[in-house]
Parts: sequence; C-alpha cells; structure tokens
Amino acid sequence: MRTLSGSFVYEMDKNVEPAWEVEPGETVKAETPDCFNGQIKSDEDTLEDLDMTQVNPATGPIYVKDAEPGDTLLVTIEEIKVKSPGVQGIVPGFGLLQDEFDEPLVTVHEIDEEGIEFEGKKLPVHPMIGTIGVAPEGKPVLCSTPGAHGGNLDTPDVRPGVTLKFPVFHEGALLSLGDGHALQGDGEVCGVSIEVATTTTLTVDVEKETISTPLIEGEDEFITLGSDEDLEGACRIALRAMVDYLSNNTTLSPQDAYKLCSVATDMKVSQVVNPLRTARVSVKKEIVEKFQG
Amino acid sequence: MRTLSGSFVYEMDKNVEPAWEVEPGETVKAETPDCFNGQIKSDEDTLEDLDMTQVNPATGPIYVKDAEPGDTLLVTIEEIKVKSPGVQGIVPGFGLLQDEFDEPLVTVHEIDEEGIEFEGKKLPVHPMIGTIGVAPEGKPVLCSTPGAHGGNLDTPDVRPGVTLKFPVFHEGALLSLGDGHALQGDGEVCGVSIEVATTTTLTVDVEKETISTPLIEGEDEFITLGSDEDLEGACRIALRAMVDYLSNNTTLSPQDAYKLCSVATDMKVSQVVNPLRTARVSVKKEIVEKFQG
Repeated sequence: MRTLSGSFVYEMDKNVEPAWEVEPGETVKAETPDCFNGQIKSDEDTLEDLDMTQVNPATGPIYVKDAEPGDTLLVTIEEIKVKSPGVQGIVPGFGLLQDEFDEPLVTVHEIDEEGIEFEGKKLPVHPMIGTIGVAPEGKPVLCSTPGAHGGNLDTPDVRPGVTLKFPVFHEGALLSLGDGHALQGDGEVCGVSIEVATTTTLTVDVEKETISTPLIEGEDEFITLGSDEDLEGACRIALRAMVDYLSNNTTLSPQDAYKLCSVATDMKVSQVVNPLRTARVSVKKEIVEKFQG
Repeated sequence: MRTLSGSFVYEMDKNVEPAWEVEPGETVKAETPDCFNGQIKSDEDTLEDLDMTQVNPATGPIYVKDAEPGDTLLVTIEEIKVKSPGVQGIVPGFGLLQDEFDEPLVTVHEIDEEGIEFEGKKLPVHPMIGTIGVAPEGKPVLCSTPGAHGGNLDTPDVRPGVTLKFPVFHEGALLSLGDGHALQGDGEVCGVSIEVATTTTLTVDVEKETISTPLIEGEDEFITLGSDEDLEGACRIALRAMVDYLSNNTTLSPQDAYKLCSVATDMKVSQVVNPLRTARVSVKKEIVEKFQG
C-alpha cells in the first residue's frame, strides 16, 4: 500500500497540480499533520509564536482517475491512527463563548492506550478527520472553511468505518484531507479539539451519480451535511438533501419524506465555530428500509 | 393517585389561578389534550376549519407547595401513555422548508402496540412531552413558545425516566404541560410531530437551588437547554449553562470546563420551528464523574 506524505495544501483549489494519482478502488495511507502543522510542542508554546500561514494544512491534492465533473467521489475511512501528543487551546476571538473566554491558552495532551490525558484524567480516543474534501466548483476555499465540496466539516462521524460521498466538480476530484482530532464533541464549541497528526488509511472510488452536498454512509445510518453562514441555513441545506435522498430512494413522496423527517430523523450541530457553520441530518437505515417497497 | 384533567392554559402566566395544588414528592397523572385540542379527527379535517384559539393547550396550572422564587422545580416523568390516533401535517408558512412545502396537509395516524401507521408501515412509538414549564418571570408567554421557563421546548429527551429541572420564578411554580408526541425527530423540521393526547404520570419536587435555564437529568447523561430567536444563540445559552454546570460540579476551572465541552459534550437541535429555537448540550455522566475528585 502506498503512503502519501509531504505534500500539503492550505486551500482546496482546482488549479493546484495533483501530488499523487490513485486508481478507483485503491487503498492508500495518508500522513496528515495536525492543524497547527506541528508548530506547538509544549504548554510553553504560545499562539503569538504561530506562523498562521502554516495553519490548517491538508494532505493532497489526490487525483482520482475516472472522476469526472458530475460524478460522486466515495472515500471510505479504513483506519485513523493518531499520534501523541494532541494539542488543544483557547484562541481569542474564536469559539462560541469568545466574549467570556478571551485569554489565550495552549495545552499539550499525551495520548496512550489508556486515552487522552486531560487535567490528570483520561478521556477516550475517538479519532476523526476534521478537514476532507475535493476542489470546489469555483474559487479556491481555505482549508479552514467547509462547503458543498467538504472541507473543514469538523463532523465527528468522519471516523473509521464510514464512507463519505462528495460531489466531483473537476476532473480527478482533487481530494485533500487533514485536521485530525483524537476527540471532538458536536459543536467543537471552543473552536479547538484534541488536534493530532494522523496516519489515515482510506479507499477511494467513483460513482456515476450526482449529489449536491457531502453525505456520509455509516453502518446503521445515513447522514446529510449542510454548511452555511448561519447555523439554521446549514440545517436547511442538510434537511433538503435528506428529503431528496428519502424521496429518491424510497416509495415516499417529497411531502411524505419531509413529514418523515419531522418524526424520524435527527439534527446535530457539527461545528459552530468555522467561517461557515456545519449541521447534519441523520436517518437510521432501518427506517429507510421500511419504505423501500 | 390523583388525576388532573379538564383545566388548560394557552399561556404560561403568573396571574392565572392554579387549578390544582400538589405536595413536594407527590405523584399525579395529568390528562393532556393534543396540540390541536382534539379538533382534527380524520384526514378530511382541514387546517382552515381549526379554531386557532384552541391550539397548544397545556394542562395546568399546578401549584407546587413550598416552591419559592429562586428554587428549582423537579419534574420526573414516570410514564407517558399516548392515545390513538396521532395527527401530523404540513402547515403553510411553518417549518424549515416552508418555501418548498406550501400546500396544507393533515394526516391522521392510527397507533397500536405495533407502532404508528405511516404510509402503510409502522414507526416505533417514543412518547415525549413537547410543552412543559412554569410561569415565566415577566409577561405571559404563549404555550407555543419556549424560554427560560420551559414551555414549547419540543425536545425528544423529555421522555419517561428523566427528571426535568426548571427555575421557579413565582410561588408555587405554576407548572403546566401538554403537546404530547408519539414520535419526534430532533429539529421537528416540518413543525408537526405525531401529535397525541396523553395520560402522563409525573412526580414533582422542589430543590433549594437556583438555575437559569431548564435542565434534564437522564440515567446516563445530563442535558442543558437553551432557547433564543436564533439557533446559534440557543446553542450559546445551552453551552453557557453546561460550562456553569461542569465548573460548579467538578474540579475543573471554567476555562477547562469550556475546553472539555469542545471535545466531550454534544450539541443537538431540539426544534427549529417555534417562535424561539431550542438547542441542547449533553454530557455523559461517566465524563462528569471523572472530574469529581
């Protein structure tokens, strides 16, 4: 299996030359730096010392053969190995309670088999990838920002075992990924998780179908994602994608699919701290299967 | 056990004469009408025929002895028996996709031991109470609206087995409840669940502590609720209550509690359709217990 390492982007951009080319069906390992690109190594490092041009690197771009505009790129997350230590902190002017918590803070957290060290106790490790996406349709988008192309979705469901689906806007899709988290809560409310470098194993594939916003297929559930300037707008995009999914994949009319969402789908906040907010709507597969004939 | 039946309010209001008086520790049954007050009985009934002055009744007010301003009212939901049929529908000008779904629709759903009839299939019954709260601090608040006093929280976690906590603003607290749902998804996105009349068994109690927003204590988790004009504001209120809870009930500083929320609490949308939106933040008790000494 190939290991992809050493090429990063800070924007997802159709005009960046691909670093690697992979075949549909191929499994590769990607080495991803943490969101600070390894600049923080101890509690004594400060945010003032950070070179901000090195924040939010994503390993890529990866050119996927046969991926054409209008297709869907499938990315199955096989494994995420996190590297110790992880970094957390509070960044002034960033986070949902930034008016109250305006003192900068950097903390380094050792991670071992027993978990993540946090104030003398151990928190469980639930590794996930914060930033993953394809080259957006139009202008370049910073890796700090989510959208229809994916990007900084900061969604805890982007974890081993799921298959992500992205709209393909450009030949080869131009996949990039990074911003690993050893643990993140829904909302990522202070703006920073337990930020880690990872070795992430993924399998890519291409489907000749068109979608409008990223989707996640897990073992038991199906998830639609929406990102927008405002959290309610993000919820609306994810809901519209779920109504489309249900009315296209079941015997339900759009109206009945909408009614079903009101009683049998769930709505979670992925993150409420990035330049666009991200929300998601999920449905259990056992509910979908009831209405498949 | 007493059964409370036949007195409804359409506003939660400190000036309404209590219908019943209960002792701290007392368990009672409350008969609650559905949110349409039983006006819809078949698919042929239309929204145009509805007497809107009868929408959103809540059984109450219940005067709880010893409840003084500044106390906390505890309400444990012991059991919710739902009555068949349930009513759902699409109301023009209401719901997250109201721009797309503007045709009025009313549907009546039979409920039996196998579940809720929905387009020829059965959905599971997960009964909950949509509206429950105390007399608000200031002006009367319609039962359609949530707030610091509770009200139309439309939160699926308000289910048998949990204990709700409300700030007490007035002597006796003046509890009211109604708007039962046989099933609701997070978001309640079309604005209507499977609306049912219920017989709800609850135990009330009083704690000599002061809280600022409704809380829910479940078997495994602790939940804070926020309601605001804007969904992100609702998230912020719930998060602030969670940071307060964690820093008051663990060894963590407020800053560390905020950082813990970013990695180990979750954020869900309760409803995105009422005059104020409601969101909630939850933490697993096993996480809280790690930091209790």
